[in-house]
Amino acid sequence: MGRITKQQKKQTDQDETATVPLAAVDAWWRAANYLSVGQIYLLDDPLLEHPLTVDDTKPRLLGHWGTTPGLNFIWAHLNKQIVERDADVIYLAGPGHGGPGVVANAWLDGTYSELFHHIPMDAKGMGRLFRQFSFPGGIPSHAAPETPGSINEGGELGYSLVHAYGAVLDNPGLIAACVVGDGEAETATLATSWHLNKFVNPVTDGTVLPILHLNGYKIANPTILARIPQDELAALFTGYGYSPRFVEGGFDGEDPMAVHERFAAVLATALDDIAEIREAAAAASADGSEVARPAWPMIVMRTPKGWTGPKEVDGLPVENTWRAHQVPLAGLRDNPEHLRQLQEWMESYRPHELFDEQGRPAAALDPNRPKGDRRMSANPHANGGLLLKALDLPPLDDLAIDVSEGRGTIAEPTRVLGKWLRDVMVANPDDFRLFGPDEVASNRLDAVYEVTDKEWEGEVLPVDEHLAPRGRVIEMLSENLAQGLLEGYLLTGRHGLFTSYEAFIHVVDSMFNQYAKWLESSAEVEWRRPVSSFTYLLSSHVWRQDHNGFSHQDPGFLDHVVNKQASVVRVYLPPDANTLLVTAEHCFATRDYVNVIVAGKQPGPTLLSLEEARAHGARGLSVWEWAGTEVEGLEPDVVIAAAGDIPTLEAMAAVQILAKEIPDLRIRFVNVVDLMRLQDEREHPHGLSSDAFDEVFTKDKPVIFAFHGYPSLIHRLTYRRTNHANIHVRGFKERGTTTTPFDMLMLNDLDRFRLVMDVVQRVPSLRVAYAGFSQRMEDE
Amino acid sequence: MGRITKQQKKQTDQDETATVPLAAVDAWWRAANYLSVGQIYLLDDPLLEHPLTVDDTKPRLLGHWGTTPGLNFIWAHLNKQIVERDADVIYLAGPGHGGPGVVANAWLDGTYSELFHHIPMDAKGMGRLFRQFSFPGGIPSHAAPETPGSINEGGELGYSLVHAYGAVLDNPGLIAACVVGDGEAETATLATSWHLNKFVNPVTDGTVLPILHLNGYKIANPTILARIPQDELAALFTGYGYSPRFVEGGFDGEDPMAVHERFAAVLATALDDIAEIREAAAAASADGSEVARPAWPMIVMRTPKGWTGPKEVDGLPVENTWRAHQVPLAGLRDNPEHLRQLQEWMESYRPHELFDEQGRPAAALDPNRPKGDRRMSANPHANGGLLLKALDLPPLDDLAIDVSEGRGTIAEPTRVLGKWLRDVMVANPDDFRLFGPDEVASNRLDAVYEVTDKEWEGEVLPVDEHLAPRGRVIEMLSENLAQGLLEGYLLTGRHGLFTSYEAFIHVVDSMFNQYAKWLESSAEVEWRRPVSSFTYLLSSHVWRQDHNGFSHQDPGFLDHVVNKQASVVRVYLPPDANTLLVTAEHCFATRDYVNVIVAGKQPGPTLLSLEEARAHGARGLSVWEWAGTEVEGLEPDVVIAAAGDIPTLEAMAAVQILAKEIPDLRIRFVNVVDLMRLQDEREHPHGLSSDAFDEVFTKDKPVIFAFHGYPSLIHRLTYRRTNHANIHVRGFKERGTTTTPFDMLMLNDLDRFRLVMDVVQRVPSLRVAYAGFSQRMEDE
Ligand SMILES: Cc1ncc(C[n+]2csc(CCOP(=O)(O)OP(=O)(O)O)c2C)c(N)n1
Ligand SMILES: Cc1ncc(C[n+]2csc(CCOP(=O)(O)OP(=O)(O)O)c2C)c(N)n1
Ligand SMILES: [Mg+2]
Ligand SMILES: [Mg+2]
Repeated sequence: MGRITKQQKKQTDQDETATVPLAAVDAWWRAANYLSVGQIYLLDDPLLEHPLTVDDTKPRLLGHWGTTPGLNFIWAHLNKQIVERDADVIYLAGPGHGGPGVVANAWLDGTYSELFHHIPMDAKGMGRLFRQFSFPGGIPSHAAPETPGSINEGGELGYSLVHAYGAVLDNPGLIAACVVGDGEAETATLATSWHLNKFVNPVTDGTVLPILHLNGYKIANPTILARIPQDELAALFTGYGYSPRFVEGGFDGEDPMAVHERFAAVLATALDDIAEIREAAAAASADGSEVARPAWPMIVMRTPKGWTGPKEVDGLPVENTWRAHQVPLAGLRDNPEHLRQLQEWMESYRPHELFDEQGRPAAALDPNRPKGDRRMSANPHANGGLLLKALDLPPLDDLAIDVSEGRGTIAEPTRVLGKWLRDVMVANPDDFRLFGPDEVASNRLDAVYEVTDKEWEGEVLPVDEHLAPRGRVIEMLSENLAQGLLEGYLLTGRHGLFTSYEAFIHVVDSMFNQYAKWLESSAEVEWRRPVSSFTYLLSSHVWRQDHNGFSHQDPGFLDHVVNKQASVVRVYLPPDANTLLVTAEHCFATRDYVNVIVAGKQPGPTLLSLEEARAHGARGLSVWEWAGTEVEGLEPDVVIAAAGDIPTLEAMAAVQILAKEIPDLRIRFVNVVDLMRLQDEREHPHGLSSDAFDEVFTKDKPVIFAFHGYPSLIHRLTYRRTNHANIHVRGFKERGTTTTPFDMLMLNDLDRFRLVMDVVQRVPSLRVAYAGFSQRMEDE
Repeated sequence: MGRITKQQKKQTDQDETATVPLAAVDAWWRAANYLSVGQIYLLDDPLLEHPLTVDDTKPRLLGHWGTTPGLNFIWAHLNKQIVERDADVIYLAGPGHGGPGVVANAWLDGTYSELFHHIPMDAKGMGRLFRQFSFPGGIPSHAAPETPGSINEGGELGYSLVHAYGAVLDNPGLIAACVVGDGEAETATLATSWHLNKFVNPVTDGTVLPILHLNGYKIANPTILARIPQDELAALFTGYGYSPRFVEGGFDGEDPMAVHERFAAVLATALDDIAEIREAAAAASADGSEVARPAWPMIVMRTPKGWTGPKEVDGLPVENTWRAHQVPLAGLRDNPEHLRQLQEWMESYRPHELFDEQGRPAAALDPNRPKGDRRMSANPHANGGLLLKALDLPPLDDLAIDVSEGRGTIAEPTRVLGKWLRDVMVANPDDFRLFGPDEVASNRLDAVYEVTDKEWEGEVLPVDEHLAPRGRVIEMLSENLAQGLLEGYLLTGRHGLFTSYEAFIHVVDSMFNQYAKWLESSAEVEWRRPVSSFTYLLSSHVWRQDHNGFSHQDPGFLDHVVNKQASVVRVYLPPDANTLLVTAEHCFATRDYVNVIVAGKQPGPTLLSLEEARAHGARGLSVWEWAGTEVEGLEPDVVIAAAGDIPTLEAMAAVQILAKEIPDLRIRFVNVVDLMRLQDEREHPHGLSSDAFDEVFTKDKPVIFAFHGYPSLIHRLTYRRTNHANIHVRGFKERGTTTTPFDMLMLNDLDRFRLVMDVVQRVPSLRVAYAGFSQRMEDE
């Protein structure tokens, strides 16, 4: 249902609210700049009470100045609009390496001192704020989990805009102001993120306001977008579907007040236009119709890199060049002129107007400071765990595959899961979403379309199916965007699932990395509340590439994932439909993890009843007595273990051959659904104790392990186990082509005959006695 | 020097050349379509000599029809232009899953039969062509290394355009016609690739002609670009800096001849315009000036997905919908109507006009067939090894760091390498390039700017440095583009280097994967000639993140790389400047590998003379007697090994402490530069034999291994070694933040004190005797 929230009202409607004078905006900006420079340079004397000496400065100068004045400028102006409109705004710093800027603003907001008591809003706090920045034991130089108000880590560039879009989904009251670096804009993910305006609904979703920060340079080069003609730039953003607005200023010593005036006007108009678009859409919606996709405003802000910093250093231009990127005055220790320039630079902000004698922000800034949750650094959307509600998880019972007539009922696991996802969507209509790169149907989750559609704000033709505004599935052909949208959605306190082909999930390896690092760091930030876990469903996996070849065969994402801290990663390989159901149910109730589920989509036998699957899921790995030939009370001769749907079936087939040919062989059959059970409990919270592991896998019997992925992963996980030297793993050996599933197994020595031979060769009593049999298997 | 090659001449200048009639183009297109459908469906009766029966069709129907008629259409039209202009054109099929199409064209060209003798140009060959497609033991369903004329694997989408741009660099005579899928265009890499037009020079580079294949759909959804208004689409490509031209046709049963006419005219104009742009640029160049960046033509072709295929199947529309994506008639076995529709479909191409009774392509096609190397499937640029010249590698001697006064001369390894790269550029002015995501200077390779510039066709300001058209360094802030450009450059027979920060190289994990798979598959394709290796130089590595924090700390690319076949991957960790020099020299002379070099950029001691470094490089791992305390003739008590610059120094420091405190301890010091030496020779061509390994690492002494990356990698590589159980590895444990280098070592238990304690705890004779010493170390 459309509703116009107060913060979307136009400023002109709100005459009761005071107008924030530009002088206050400018004071805020100067204060933030002052604090940013202080963080980069100063150890002591934060208020410049004495002439700066070398001892007041940091021995190692680290940080990024160049982007910071622009980030501060935009923050200051957003504050004005928030105060005037009571708007609900979060701030994403694309060039998040401008860490000192966002931290400075959070301190001016008051949030910083509320969250970090040892850094009060006074001279002492300011001193500590300066010292901790990029200092051992202090805070990182990038916007990071430690940064109040941030949902975007500023280390690896390119993800700000997709995070912003993820944040506004189902948040109709929210505006995500997203500062995009002009260098960042060259990255692949950022370049395709602009198109996400086709997937937000003007009634049920919030709005992203992108602000391209055209400061002309990246680290050591000009940026593309800064060096194309203005008409090309305008065409580009028009072509991306926006209504671009341009503000340029601060060059050739232009008085900042003039730039403030221009920017304030453009920003106000942009927000007015957003409000108008939303009002029109809400009105149409109230009449039961939908407006055509609007051209949402975006702003191009062209200002000098390192604006207000040193114009020249050592005779070379710095402001408005790439030289402003990091630390413009790097020679403080050896060069008194640098020290003098630093003093002059900091004083140029007129700190006595900005801070009182106690170092508290002066009253001049007050009008520009939003209150409470409206402060961008305190906005609860940026600490989404605060807003998180547990998912209402519907029962699995009616969907589970019935095996009461005997194991083996054929089902397509992901198709069964799709039905449950459908029910999850019904039970959680506002805070659960499914993201995929055009693979939701291919991965057989299409039951969700019984209750929802694919979100689509573009033209819909009569021939289309399940395409509509307000759909809860988003499918753009970009793994990066699916990943980034879900990240943004989770970090703002919601739930979801990303489904992809197994091989191509490597496209987001680095995004996974950064997200896992975000979770790792967040765990140490006391005030960050837990968020719903990021869950991957990988299907169309390596063993079943019916239409495709070698390029589609790659199970290596699991290896990549386990490099991250054990506290945040979980890997599941459910062998059948029912186990997939319970695995998903489990994952959706977890917090602060990355769950990776690899599951089949092709018809396959259902091996466990729902109840058995629950028990199996809870144990993580189980002995399946019914699938082995062991005799209670006696140690088995060999353990055959499997993880993954196809390896499980193949291993079971091997047992059958062996049971027929060598009837008294006592085979224990183990299935692993939670891969991290294999690791030692000291290494992973899911890890089995050493004793428990030895009980299942024995201390000394051969273990033949049929694995879904690269064999080395099993060795790596079981490295510390007593019986490790006897664990023999078969898995993907990087042999592939377009071929039948069985041929794939043969190519990689994971077929039943090879497993049988492995057993014969490794069980001492069989090796010689069954040489002939082994030979027959070889011939198969 | 600018030169106008014949193939860039306008058609109107070439009156001596015959005009290819559109009837021949149409015949070609129909023939290619017929052959494509045949590949997807038929086992037998390729010429439809009898009414089709189920037995004539494949039991499993695999392949992608939807994209294929468009790919064939464009190929047929390019042929006409090639014949008329004698143009030098290669073809990149973005939606390379249209494999049957490109294969069909290669067969019609004659190339296929020349390369695969068992598939002649007659009915027998046609039958085999059909059967092998997507068939066990046959060919993949995507454009792949097996596909003549292809340099773009069509599995993982998104890389066609960047490959095309890589191909035309320094190939002024070449046009790379690149068909971009409208779904593919949504991928991150593709979306930023359009901007590459800012990095090609109209005189010294060739031209990319992008053709956006707007067939409206991807797998199961419409595409964004197909559903935005025409004016947005035009604005978008204008904004990207192109001159877009639109052709639409084939809808509502429009006669293809009308579409042929329109497309031929647009294509001819585009090529004329390209020729004109190039002529003007060459003329300006001859006068010593450069033209402003031209708006190169690009074509938007809007035709129905699955054009000419079944309009409806089972009562549902198929042509011009997503249903045409794979196999439109999937029920041949059970549904006689499907079989009838297939027959009707194939006959609609009028095969008797296209093939003679022997199944040879009819004379009607001849005018549209280019000759020899001009055939796109035979163009040598697409089998770049044919054109490859070995690099002229300048001597290292003058650049090597002198250690004749004693080991330890301080040098920044990558800075030293930069000087050699400079010399390589001078010696190889046309076929060696450096690519980076704005990190060439940051990684301290800026000596190259003494002899070249950063390629930049945009505006250049007085303040800029080393920015010019025709620069041999390309820096756009996209790891994906650096990767893809170098791939395209190498596959067309040239050489280069990609330099990146270590952590962010994960951005291209999936591109590396696909490229490694390309090399793996190419090795089995007899007619593909070896190409120069892809070499990564990763710096700003995990142990030296001076400005940055946890997000920049990730050495996991090495783990990712070693999952690929041993035949194609090589990993080097040179410990100092001189070893880096010899490593690079070695890598540049190799073929068909991916070489990963991780090296430091910070000042550090040079440990080996050039001569020693050569020997060390050649051995791959060496005992450094001078760094240990062992006594010739006696077994050592312990081996301390190191791989990576920082771990090497730390391990050496540990030896020093130990030598002082426990003077009679016999420590062997081993340094590993070629990581794959650790693996068994049966697993990797560089692997040491078991005996050789045991000689160095002993069979039973403790080995303390200080490693640059995640410790598990060393375990993985040494898994089969006799002494494996005694190898104790320290490395990155995923602990990081913005901190000092030494604190990073402490956080990850890789510091000298920890290594000393490891030795004390693991050498049986020390454990008890030196408990107090160990305790002191703990306190450090
Ligand atoms: C993916 C990625 N590649 C490379 C870098 C290294 N890097 C850090 S800052 C920067 C330049 C950023 O330029 P821009 O976005 O314009 O930011 P600003 O000018 O505001 O500093 C680069 C390339 C990175 N952080 N992330
Ligand atoms: C990176 C990546 N993600 C997903 C896929 C799965 N996939 C195969 S074809 C396809 C649709 C391609 O659409 P388009 O580029 O429009 O090609 P066409 O319509 O010509 O078939 C998708 C999503 C893929 N091949 N690569
Ligand atoms: Mg910039
Ligand atoms: Mg398409």
